[in-house]
Amino acid sequence: MGAAGVRRHNLALVLREVADGEPVSRAAVAARTGLTRGTVSSLVEELLDGGLVTELAAARGGTGRPANPLQLNRSGPAGLGVEIGVDHVGACVVDLAGAVRAVRTAESDHRGRAPAVGLRTAAALAAEVIAEAGLAVVGATVALPGVVGPRGELQRAPNLPRWIDVPVTAELSGLLRGLPVGTGNEADLAALAELWCGGGPPDMLYVSGEIGVGGAIVLGGGLFRGAGGRAGELGHVVVDPGGPRCSCGGRGCLEQAAGQDALLAAAGATDVDDLLARQHDAVPAAAVDAAGRALGVALAGAVNLLDVPAVVLGGLYARLGTPLRDAVAAELDTRVLTSPPVDIRSSVLGADAALRGAATSVVRALLQLPPAS
Amino acid sequence: MGAAGVRRHNLALVLREVADGEPVSRAAVAARTGLTRGTVSSLVEELLDGGLVTELAAARGGTGRPANPLQLNRSGPAGLGVEIGVDHVGACVVDLAGAVRAVRTAESDHRGRAPAVGLRTAAALAAEVIAEAGLAVVGATVALPGVVGPRGELQRAPNLPRWIDVPVTAELSGLLRGLPVGTGNEADLAALAELWCGGGPPDMLYVSGEIGVGGAIVLGGGLFRGAGGRAGELGHVVVDPGGPRCSCGGRGCLEQAAGQDALLAAAGATDVDDLLARQHDAVPAAAVDAAGRALGVALAGAVNLLDVPAVVLGGLYARLGTPLRDAVAAELDTRVLTSPPVDIRSSVLGADAALRGAATSVVRALLQLPPAS
Repeated sequence: MGAAGVRRHNLALVLREVADGEPVSRAAVAARTGLTRGTVSSLVEELLDGGLVTELAAARGGTGRPANPLQLNRSGPAGLGVEIGVDHVGACVVDLAGAVRAVRTAESDHRGRAPAVGLRTAAALAAEVIAEAGLAVVGATVALPGVVGPRGELQRAPNLPRWIDVPVTAELSGLLRGLPVGTGNEADLAALAELWCGGGPPDMLYVSGEIGVGGAIVLGGGLFRGAGGRAGELGHVVVDPGGPRCSCGGRGCLEQAAGQDALLAAAGATDVDDLLARQHDAVPAAAVDAAGRALGVALAGAVNLLDVPAVVLGGLYARLGTPLRDAVAAELDTRVLTSPPVDIRSSVLGADAALRGAATSVVRALLQLPPAS
Repeated sequence: MGAAGVRRHNLALVLREVADGEPVSRAAVAARTGLTRGTVSSLVEELLDGGLVTELAAARGGTGRPANPLQLNRSGPAGLGVEIGVDHVGACVVDLAGAVRAVRTAESDHRGRAPAVGLRTAAALAAEVIAEAGLAVVGATVALPGVVGPRGELQRAPNLPRWIDVPVTAELSGLLRGLPVGTGNEADLAALAELWCGGGPPDMLYVSGEIGVGGAIVLGGGLFRGAGGRAGELGHVVVDPGGPRCSCGGRGCLEQAAGQDALLAAAGATDVDDLLARQHDAVPAAAVDAAGRALGVALAGAVNLLDVPAVVLGGLYARLGTPLRDAVAAELDTRVLTSPPVDIRSSVLGADAALRGAATSVVRALLQLPPAS
């Protein structure tokens, strides 16, 4: 590492100390990092110039040069999260400290329409949210309901048959005036949001009830991507080999037993609100129990395979609360080999989890590796 | 790292160069490691003294001090592998170069007997094999058909109900005159053998047909242990939620559809040899196909979850050859989301894979961190 590399490394080190300890003095940063106070002051100047850090007024006047406490600049560079779901779009701006500054979602069914329509709808919503937040958005991450390839393309989404090898990164970047755009699987980003913003445990299986069933694996505080980078597809774990045909080409996948459409059909409900309103009636209650059992069967297999101590239920599964969680727990208790019992919890982040994770991933990357000014 | 630490690190470096390049000259070791020739000579002396390395006669006479090529000492310290299976025991000694120098297996059904009987049987067989090999065995690893705890205890083995929290490391070390003893899951050790001795790929799911179904996950050339250290339990992934009750307490686990006992019963075969002799008859062929389908269902879920590119079939599954592999492939082709198709192969190591992995793990540890002499 040359001198410029060392300086950039130290810049990131100082920025993370500010993020973790804010408000924090230059002296405290020097003490925690082991850097000299002169080096810290010089690095802080660079972070102030770059708009990443800001100074608070000192609590009281002192002698000589003031050393006001530092914090992340809430008016500085911001991250955009975009979600293109099966039947909705969303956009969200978070500031450097991770606070949501603007968020909107809208219905937009992409199942029968050309990808270009969905991309334009998402880009328009993103432009509105950027304007509303009034911050300098420096990058975006797009949450997608399928398998994402190495160049940011949506390779395949079982519930969006027309979206095959769609170059989402390139297209959305073009629609957003050249903004740097990354992509990720929606369940992966929701799981990261759970970890970063929801107090989720560092080792967990995350499973989210959507039109599809999203799954993600978090190990050691990071996403487990598997050898090919696309790990976590719990929705197509088989729970009933001879069961109904699935959009993936298989039969009896979890999605056909516990995905939103299957659950609504079994419950005789018209939509999610109807299901939630009547979830304690006999037929919907039985449907929720059956879906929870199927989910528990798939999760038990995954827990036995991965040996993870915690399961977090997101999306619709979080909204269904205790009855669903109890059915999941009953299957896990019977089927999981290891002890102690698996910690099963519901997500606290709600429907915006993937969006939140997407936007937060942008500012976290900035904090990890601040741009040289 | 102090000077002694640096020397030990360099000792290991030189030893690995000898292992990877043998026969190899001191000069070549110096060139590859970047150490001076003087340092290499001094380290080689220590390895010669410790019996880890030996000199071959030089191809022709030279002037001055001879510099004979080096190789691992086949008469040096050796590793013992022990296997305590559900219905058999095994023991194996490999030399420093990984060659099997003595191996024996014997029937020994542990299902209805006290653990102490199985441990004594295994220790007696191990003593015979050590005597036969005539090498200085410096450590042992025991392959066990269940969940192994942090102190080398067999916590739980679904097919050995009387083996609960059995302190295998402590007991066997006592029976083998204080020999250092480690333990591992049999499928984990068989998968490592596949990787180390069988040309197996660095990223794979390994699944082995035994009385139980053993599973292990290899990622990036190492065992994936999961958050709790006990990952890979494919045998208790559910393939038929309402299916037969399993020894684990669940229902419809893979083991009940594709374990050895289930397969023999479905095929109307008295034992494995009978099944193999008649596997092309209608009833056994249908049973093998059904077992392969169930195995494929479980593997497809695991591949979707972990995103691994290869599956290796071991134990009975390897012996059943093409018909089983074709049934597995048919399910994977339909159910796996990612492309390209999963590479499905049969193990080349045979029934001794776990034993081989166990013994090899001892000498590999020695090569990684040679004892200070």
